[in-house]
Amino acid sequence: MVAGTARLYAIIGDPVGHVRTPLVFNAYFAEHGIDAVCVPIHIRPDELETALAGLKAIANLDGFIVTAPHKARVAGIVDRLVGDGDKVGAVNTVRREADGSFTGTMLDGHGFVAGLAKAGWGPQGKSVYIAGAGGAASAIAFALAGAGMARLTIFDRTPAMGQALLARVKAAYPHIETAFGTRDPSGHDLAVNATPLGLEPDDPFSFDVEKADPETLVAEVLMKPETTALLHAAAARGCAIHQGKHMLDGQRDLMMAYFGLAPQATP
Amino acid sequence: MVAGTARLYAIIGDPVGHVRTPLVFNAYFAEHGIDAVCVPIHIRPDELETALAGLKAIANLDGFIVTAPHKARVAGIVDRLVGDGDKVGAVNTVRREADGSFTGTMLDGHGFVAGLAKAGWGPQGKSVYIAGAGGAASAIAFALAGAGMARLTIFDRTPAMGQALLARVKAAYPHIETAFGTRDPSGHDLAVNATPLGLEPDDPFSFDVEKADPETLVAEVLMKPETTALLHAAAARGCAIHQGKHMLDGQRDLMMAYFGLAPQATP
Repeated sequence: MVAGTARLYAIIGDPVGHVRTPLVFNAYFAEHGIDAVCVPIHIRPDELETALAGLKAIANLDGFIVTAPHKARVAGIVDRLVGDGDKVGAVNTVRREADGSFTGTMLDGHGFVAGLAKAGWGPQGKSVYIAGAGGAASAIAFALAGAGMARLTIFDRTPAMGQALLARVKAAYPHIETAFGTRDPSGHDLAVNATPLGLEPDDPFSFDVEKADPETLVAEVLMKPETTALLHAAAARGCAIHQGKHMLDGQRDLMMAYFGLAPQATP
Repeated sequence: MVAGTARLYAIIGDPVGHVRTPLVFNAYFAEHGIDAVCVPIHIRPDELETALAGLKAIANLDGFIVTAPHKARVAGIVDRLVGDGDKVGAVNTVRREADGSFTGTMLDGHGFVAGLAKAGWGPQGKSVYIAGAGGAASAIAFALAGAGMARLTIFDRTPAMGQALLARVKAAYPHIETAFGTRDPSGHDLAVNATPLGLEPDDPFSFDVEKADPETLVAEVLMKPETTALLHAAAARGCAIHQGKHMLDGQRDLMMAYFGLAPQATP
């Protein structure tokens, strides 16, 4: 039960009805005896600045998660960016500092990498193909780069966006071999759909999964359906597959650590 | 568990750690299968305007309770006042309207009257002595007046405040016999401590309870301790007593009805 002493956490988005974060966070708080509650906060785009000023004025609000469509704009409103927040130009996690200010970071990509790690896959020295060049693709690209990826191919229907993301990754990680690709993902250890294609039943695939090498791990950022048509096609080809939900599951502990709520490590 | 679809309710105050409203509301929501959650929101006085603008920008926030020290200032910030909000000049309950605006009302006094009703006491035709002339005293005076009280005596250490409250009650309810009293509560059906005296162990009584008629019901607005020293003294004198907690208990159903969350009445 929520007491008067509860610390507040939130997830802000438009819409928010579909989000799982309150369930995941509140289960964590209950499990670890933390007197806190996470609530969904629905903020429409034209109210974002006013709402964020209001959140800052709530003295017992210690942090919040940011989901679509606010990730990029919140990066421009918080007091400072850390981690990949600056490089990606978007944040999904904001915490309150002792001085009352807000610090944002971007954990989507790190959650994706953590999810892969739980499945036994590490990016060190690997070559990665990403379809897409938006927020999810950027977050994943930078997190994989920070975790030791050797080669990155981006493909996007808007080549200028893909080239721009490649240039930003190259600027931060000059040793990574980068290339703008085609719809053909062959020759990579990991191929990721980081586009919204697959949300609708009639969507085309974002890349030619039928050309993927059978040794390529094919991964998704989409969470509904759990196994997208792209993943079904990849599995039919003999590829190992990795569902989008693992990106979220991998983030919970990262978020809790960022909020200072991680269980104490064994000394 | 709090889902993404949850509607939000809050209690705002400074401090808020002591409030019981989230426990009471969330138990009600659970009991009635309402997908909503009530959280404590700590707002310092210098952040009140910013925080309220932020609350208005939260599209799934449907209402909030106001506690000290914000009741009077919130009355000046909301879009309109109904019920006793205007007369008392303070609100403790604010709801969202369909057009997004905020409407405030004051239910403290009505909660007090509802608590008395549950104890079998009605104000119709009765004479009432109230010690105090602040927010609680005003709310109680207007609610008792609206419920049929015939005669009102106010006593306050600051006579101008007591006189002002009496004048406001008289303006709204001209038929009520009003008088500024002394520390002596004798000759009344009900005597109420509506001051903060009693919160501290060394506080003097707000009125001379030892002069109360044994037939007088002696009531409190203070909730801690549940039975104040004043109530103990009244009981020792043979008076029936009425604890402050009943004012809050009496309000839950009034608040839910105001929010449109009351169980459907039998047709």
